[in-house]
Amino acid sequence: MSDLLRLSNPVFRTLAICTGALTLKMVVITGMTIRKRFQTGTFANAEDAKRDGQIVGTNDDVERCRRNHLNDLESIPPFVLIGLMYTLTDPDEDVAIWHFRIFTASRLLHMIAYQAALPQPSRALTFLTGLGCTTSMAIQTIRNAL
Amino acid sequence: MSDLLRLSNPVFRTLAICTGALTLKMVVITGMTIRKRFQTGTFANAEDAKRDGQIVGTNDDVERCRRNHLNDLESIPPFVLIGLMYTLTDPDEDVAIWHFRIFTASRLLHMIAYQAALPQPSRALTFLTGLGCTTSMAIQTIRNAL
Amino acid sequence: MSDLLRLSNPVFRTLAICTGALTLKMVVITGMTIRKRFQTGTFANAEDAKRDGQIVGTNDDVERCRRNHLNDLESIPPFVLIGLMYTLTDPDEDVAIWHFRIFTASRLLHMIAYQAALPQPSRALTFLTGLGCTTSMAIQTIRNAL
Repeated sequence: MSDLLRLSNPVFRTLAICTGALTLKMVVITGMTIRKRFQTGTFANAEDAKRDGQIVGTNDDVERCRRNHLNDLESIPPFVLIGLMYTLTDPDEDVAIWHFRIFTASRLLHMIAYQAALPQPSRALTFLTGLGCTTSMAIQTIRNAL
Repeated sequence: MSDLLRLSNPVFRTLAICTGALTLKMVVITGMTIRKRFQTGTFANAEDAKRDGQIVGTNDDVERCRRNHLNDLESIPPFVLIGLMYTLTDPDEDVAIWHFRIFTASRLLHMIAYQAALPQPSRALTFLTGLGCTTSMAIQTIRNAL
Repeated sequence: MSDLLRLSNPVFRTLAICTGALTLKMVVITGMTIRKRFQTGTFANAEDAKRDGQIVGTNDDVERCRRNHLNDLESIPPFVLIGLMYTLTDPDEDVAIWHFRIFTASRLLHMIAYQAALPQPSRALTFLTGLGCTTSMAIQTIRNAL
């Protein structure tokens, strides 16, 4: 079982790639927030808004990016953490890999639905798909470990 | 030491079970937030509040769930991450297992204290107990690694 | 490769120490938030503000601590998670260790810049340095795993 966290284990290899992709996805939303702050001149700290036309306050577009990012923080680190534990319980290879793939795809689609403000329930479905993957892995991890 | 992340190591096995339980706890608070949003008709995005009686805004009950969830994010991922590092420093078995059990219990009690709005210092004590476990593991991890 | 998560691997040993240091850094910002809440008598829940002079509301100094903490949550858990995956792809030892050291230093300097409200772009530079380390590790992890 000490071989489970090797790249030669397809389950771990998929988790590593998905974690890399999800990390880059969060870098993108960080960049979008910064861009929106400069575009709208809206900042959170007095020392950030020193030029003419820049204010300390909130802006709808900035807040949308920030809510998206907070939703990522609620979803992605818990997924990677339970995904690592789940990998270490030596799960069925196909089941595990599809959990990781579906979660990662759901979070990319979630960002598109959020930033394009697509009509509901599109964003809700992407969110619940990701939450379902995480829940399923948590239950399997507990069952495999008990 | 390559055997430390096996289910046959009681320290890792406890960490895996606690991570699963804490993940499910965060799924529950997510569900509670969604339920409160629909019960009160209070949403965060224009595209979420399309029906009569639904508004974009904040509501005390929704915000209580969100504060609880944010407190979880400040507490639980750092605990699991340092718990994993700590496990890999080959700590005393009983000491480690009790750190994990006490932290997990403290976070379940924290959610009860928060959602029932119990008089302080009940919630503060549950929070500080968890924070103490995390701090203790961080110090031990550094000491064992140096 | 099963030896990668041992303290005898300098890459993992550095990651463990950095994770411990960053965890303690987040404990410090938690303590600063609590101290500011009591100093200013500003709390987030009705059950927390029961004494004379204590209110439920927001305060600039408390919010500065909270923004710092949220920025930590956006930065530190993703760093540790991708750092762990990156370590498991058997990266060049010096490159990896310097990624971990620079990230950790950048986050300590970020807290100083934030809490002292230093003129920009000091805080922006510390933030972007950390983000650069995380991005670099994500790209290397994906490349090594593919």
